[in-house]
Amino acid sequence: MSNELPAPGSTERTRVRRLADKTVVDRNVLNAILDAGLVAHVAVVTDGQPYVVSVAYARDGDRVLFHGSTASRLFRGLATGDSTCLTVTLIDGLVLARSAFESSINYRSVMVLGSCVVLKGEEKDRALRVISDHLLPDRWDDIRPPTKKETAATLVLALSLEECSVKVGEGGPEEAEGDETWPAWGGHVPIREVLGEPVSDEFVTDQPVPDYVRKWTR
Amino acid sequence: MSNELPAPGSTERTRVRRLADKTVVDRNVLNAILDAGLVAHVAVVTDGQPYVVSVAYARDGDRVLFHGSTASRLFRGLATGDSTCLTVTLIDGLVLARSAFESSINYRSVMVLGSCVVLKGEEKDRALRVISDHLLPDRWDDIRPPTKKETAATLVLALSLEECSVKVGEGGPEEAEGDETWPAWGGHVPIREVLGEPVSDEFVTDQPVPDYVRKWTR
Repeated sequence: MSNELPAPGSTERTRVRRLADKTVVDRNVLNAILDAGLVAHVAVVTDGQPYVVSVAYARDGDRVLFHGSTASRLFRGLATGDSTCLTVTLIDGLVLARSAFESSINYRSVMVLGSCVVLKGEEKDRALRVISDHLLPDRWDDIRPPTKKETAATLVLALSLEECSVKVGEGGPEEAEGDETWPAWGGHVPIREVLGEPVSDEFVTDQPVPDYVRKWTR
Repeated sequence: MSNELPAPGSTERTRVRRLADKTVVDRNVLNAILDAGLVAHVAVVTDGQPYVVSVAYARDGDRVLFHGSTASRLFRGLATGDSTCLTVTLIDGLVLARSAFESSINYRSVMVLGSCVVLKGEEKDRALRVISDHLLPDRWDDIRPPTKKETAATLVLALSLEECSVKVGEGGPEEAEGDETWPAWGGHVPIREVLGEPVSDEFVTDQPVPDYVRKWTR
């Protein structure tokens, strides 16, 4: 399915002009980044003012799904098909060059351009499960199914991955010529997310933390 | 200085309407969130198309500083004072309610609205150091000072924290009425960032990893 879409970065407005060496055109990398993230930042423009809103999301094949409240003024524009941009950035480390100019942050990022469509009916029900399965794997069968009222209050949006760009910065610094011998340590410091010990809430009586939760890693 | 500005969320367009219980109006919380983050997502609108760009940033009193290349087409609009939005989101955990509807992600987020100003001269030089000191504390004195050419190629922008909103979600789930007795475990799983072991690059001969790097935590 992925191979039917154009390569990331192949349109005029997604071509990475700056730091072109960080550009990736492989859809498998795109998918892996989206599958590793939890939160995306989505643009909404209202009365000429852009807003950047963080949303939980999931990749579903060649699109990204996310949801918001039907009462949200910021989501209303997205629901009517306004142009948007959804960006996912994963921070992987600090890069310590021997100059500030070449120092940076290692990251993997995806930027998607397009317009959202509102999902309804069975497609909406399925999307809610896909999002839950991404954020909280194996949780769905353990919890109360959504009520009609809850589903009605939820706006579920899909954004195609057709037009996107992917950038990856990794490893140590690229030094400016001559800086290789500057007398300072250089390299990189990895950053990663870790899950802590699950915290039971006040309604837990004798249920242990589920095995599927124990298996989650970041 | 902070107390001279209006409270976060006090303008019509920053008032948090959804999930108002997550709203914070304390500028100390705002500052702490910005000081804990590394990367912000900034909106740029070009020809009606919004873009969400990730940038390294630092807080400097009552404004946020970030930089980009003077050659970047996306930064050009910001440099001319286009309306923008800068959002920082820190992910703190997964919230497992007994329904999908009440399950969520714990986070701390700041959204800033306004227009950037371009910093120049001594103010620009100082800003470059402030950004470095935030991302890589104590690194500055160890590295080669910026050249005039490097500084000229860098666009440094400042965005006032005057108009902003702050949201914090923490702790366990709020259950829908009646779900407290649903037979599933509920609670939250903390997420945090950790730094890994520093990796020396190929130009390191006998320099040890600096103590200031060893002291960094996330």
